[in-house]
Amino acid sequence: MNAEIISIGSEHLLGEIIDTDAPYLAKRLQEMGIEVEREITIGDDEEAIASSLEEALRRVRIVVTIGGLGPTPDDITKKVIAQVAEEQLVLNEEILSEIEKKFEEEKRSMPPDNIRQAFLPRDSHPLKNRVGIAPGFILETRNRLIVALPGPYNELVPMFEEEAIPYLKERFKAKEVIKSFTLRTTGLPESKVAEELEDIMKKSKNPIVSLLAHEDIVDIRLVARAEDEKTGEKLNAEMEKRIRERLGNYIFGTGKQTLEEVIGYLLYMRKRTIAVAESCTGGLISHRLTNVPGSSHYFLGSIVAYSDRMKRDRLGVKKATLEKQGAVSEKVACEMAKGIRRIAGSDFGLGITGIAGPTGATEEKPIGLVYIALAYKDRVETKEFRFRGERGMIKAKAANAALDMVRRDLLR
Amino acid sequence: MNAEIISIGSEHLLGEIIDTDAPYLAKRLQEMGIEVEREITIGDDEEAIASSLEEALRRVRIVVTIGGLGPTPDDITKKVIAQVAEEQLVLNEEILSEIEKKFEEEKRSMPPDNIRQAFLPRDSHPLKNRVGIAPGFILETRNRLIVALPGPYNELVPMFEEEAIPYLKERFKAKEVIKSFTLRTTGLPESKVAEELEDIMKKSKNPIVSLLAHEDIVDIRLVARAEDEKTGEKLNAEMEKRIRERLGNYIFGTGKQTLEEVIGYLLYMRKRTIAVAESCTGGLISHRLTNVPGSSHYFLGSIVAYSDRMKRDRLGVKKATLEKQGAVSEKVACEMAKGIRRIAGSDFGLGITGIAGPTGATEEKPIGLVYIALAYKDRVETKEFRFRGERGMIKAKAANAALDMVRRDLLR
Repeated sequence: MNAEIISIGSEHLLGEIIDTDAPYLAKRLQEMGIEVEREITIGDDEEAIASSLEEALRRVRIVVTIGGLGPTPDDITKKVIAQVAEEQLVLNEEILSEIEKKFEEEKRSMPPDNIRQAFLPRDSHPLKNRVGIAPGFILETRNRLIVALPGPYNELVPMFEEEAIPYLKERFKAKEVIKSFTLRTTGLPESKVAEELEDIMKKSKNPIVSLLAHEDIVDIRLVARAEDEKTGEKLNAEMEKRIRERLGNYIFGTGKQTLEEVIGYLLYMRKRTIAVAESCTGGLISHRLTNVPGSSHYFLGSIVAYSDRMKRDRLGVKKATLEKQGAVSEKVACEMAKGIRRIAGSDFGLGITGIAGPTGATEEKPIGLVYIALAYKDRVETKEFRFRGERGMIKAKAANAALDMVRRDLLR
Repeated sequence: MNAEIISIGSEHLLGEIIDTDAPYLAKRLQEMGIEVEREITIGDDEEAIASSLEEALRRVRIVVTIGGLGPTPDDITKKVIAQVAEEQLVLNEEILSEIEKKFEEEKRSMPPDNIRQAFLPRDSHPLKNRVGIAPGFILETRNRLIVALPGPYNELVPMFEEEAIPYLKERFKAKEVIKSFTLRTTGLPESKVAEELEDIMKKSKNPIVSLLAHEDIVDIRLVARAEDEKTGEKLNAEMEKRIRERLGNYIFGTGKQTLEEVIGYLLYMRKRTIAVAESCTGGLISHRLTNVPGSSHYFLGSIVAYSDRMKRDRLGVKKATLEKQGAVSEKVACEMAKGIRRIAGSDFGLGITGIAGPTGATEEKPIGLVYIALAYKDRVETKEFRFRGERGMIKAKAANAALDMVRRDLLR
C-alpha cells in the first residue's frame, strides 16, 4: 500500500510557511502500514494540480491532497479533482446544513461563497470539519483513493484522525501494522549513542532501530512491523529492554516526554520541592519547569540574578566569593544553590552561573563555561561544563544539563 | 525564470523531520526573481530521483536538488544526476585535497568512502562546503541548470549564499529584482490588521501587501518588483509610510526583530534598567529578555514567585492583599511590580500574575485571567487580560503583552 501527498497553495512556494501537515500525515500513514513515496508542493494553479494528480494516480494507490478547499476563487482543488476523476460536483445537503449551523452559532450571516463549500464530487465520502468550515472528502476513482483535506493544521489533524482514518481502516483492513516507539536519551552525543548501539542498529530488521538527534537530546526510534498491534508492541518491548541494558540512566523518557515532565513526575511522587537560582540561563529553566501543568505542586519559584547585586542581596552569595572567584565560578554556583534553597524553603536548590556570550569572556573563562550546583539537605553537588554554540544554544544546553542533574539525583 | 526543488532522502517521508531547507531556498530564489513552481520530496530511490529530475527538467529552467551527497551507499543523488545528464563522474583534485585537509585538521584519517565525494559530473561547477565535507555542484545540461546541495541546513545555507548565489547571479544577470520588507505588529488580531489595510491589500500590486500571523504577532509583508534594488526599496519605503500612518505604535519592529530586541534597544539607549516579578509566566519573560546579547546592561534580574510565600517574603506582597484579593489580582500584580523594582534597584518593575491552567480556575477567576503591572518611579500602570488557549499559549501571550506594555511605556 503506497501513497503520495500533494500540498496545494502558492503561499508554500514563497518559503514563508514551514509545512507541518505533510510530516504529520506521512507519519500517520506510515503507522498504518501505508508507505509515502512522494510529497509534492504546488501553487494554486489548475494545470499543475491536474498534472500532479494524474501522475500520482498512475504511481500510487492513495493520493492525499492538502489545501485549496476554502471559499475563495483561488481554492480550486475540489474542482480539479472532479475534472480529473470525471465526476460532477453536487450539493451535499447535510454538509450545507452543517455549515449554515456554524455561521448561526457565531451569529454571522453566511456569505454566498461558502455555499460552494457544500458541493462535493458525486459519490464521494464527505469528511466533516469539526474545527473549521471546509469539509474534506474521499473519492474512489480508477481503483485509487483521493483523500482531500483542508490546509490549516488544526482542522486537518482532527479530520484525518476522526473521519479519514476510520474510513481508510475499514476500507483496507490492513494486514500489517506498524508500531513505533521512542526512547529519549540525554547526556551522550549522537555518535556515542550510535557506537553503543552499532550492532543492534545494523543487524535488527524488526524493529528497525534509528537515531534522531535534537539539541542535546538523542531519540532512539524503534519501528516494528507485525500482524497485529500486540505482536508489534512485544517486538518493540524486547528491543527496548536490550537498549535500556546498555544505556541505563541516559534514557530519561519515552515517546514525546520532556525532561521537565519526567522531573515533575519524580518530584511529585517523592513529595519534593525545588527552587532555582539562574544566572546565564536567564529564566529558561524556570520557564521549562513551569511548562508542565501542575508544576505549582513542586516548583516554588526562582531568582534570576543577572546582576552581582541580586546575587549578593537576594541569594546571599558572599561579597568575598564574588570578588575572589568571580561571578562565574564553582563557589558562586554553590552559594546560589544553597541560597535559593534556604530562601524558598525547598528541598532542592539549583544554582547556575556561566557565560552565554557573545561578550563577557576572559582568557581563563571562555564563552560556554557554565557551573551548575544542586543542593539537597547538607550536600551540594557541583559540575563544570563547557558548551559550544551561540548564546541561545548555550542557554538551552545549560538548562538541559541542569534539569538532567536534578533527574539523576532524584533517581539515586 | 522558474525553478523546482527536489528534496531527496527517505527520512523525509517518515514524517520525522520538519523541512526548513526548501522554504529557505524558495524564499531566496523568489528574492532573486526566480519563481519556485514545485517542490518534490522523494526517498533515496534511483528510479524516483531519475523520473523527478526528468520531469522537472522538462518543466523549468533551474532544478535544485537537496540531499543525498553523503559518503554512504544510499547517497545516490550525484550518480543519478550524472546519468540523467549523460555525464561521467570525474575526480576533482581541488575538492579532494580540501576534503583531505578537513580530515587532517580534525586529526582523523579519511575513510575511503569519502573519496567518492570528490567525484563530480564532468564540466560541472563545484560548490565548496565550508561547514561539512560533501561538496555541491552546478551542472548545465539541455539549457537547464541543476544545482545540487547537501541536506544539512547548516551546510546548505552557507553553500547557497556564498557559492551558488554569486554563480547564479553572474549566469543570469537578472533584469528584475524582488525586494521584500516586513513590518511587525502586536496588540491587534489579524482580522483587525486586515480591516485597517483592506483597501491597500486589495489595490496595491507593487509592492504586494500580505499578512502572516504568528502567536500574537501579525507580520505585514511587502514584496516589490523593480528594475533594481534601489527602486524596489523605494517602493517598499513609500508603502511602509502609508501603513505606519494607519497602525502607528502597533508596529513594533521590522524584519525579524523581536519585541525583546526592540525593548532592549530602547532600554539601552535611554539608560534604563528593568527587573521582573513573574508568577504565571514562570520565567518566560526573563528568558526572552535574556535571549538578547548584551541584556545584562539593562536586565538586572527577576523573581519567579510561584508560591504565595515567595510572593510575600521575597517581593513584599502584603499578606492581607493575598488573603483578601487572592494571588491573581490587580493589587498583587501591582505590589509585585513595586516590590521587584525596589528589591532589584531598577528603573522599571514588571509584575505578572494569572492563571495559566489547566487547574487553578474559580468561577470569578477563569483560566487565562492575567494581571500585568508596570512600575516606574511613583506610578504603576495595571492591565487586566483574558487570554484563550492552553497553558503554553497563555504563558506566551501573557509574556508578549507584558513586553509590549514595557515597549509602549518606553515610547511615551
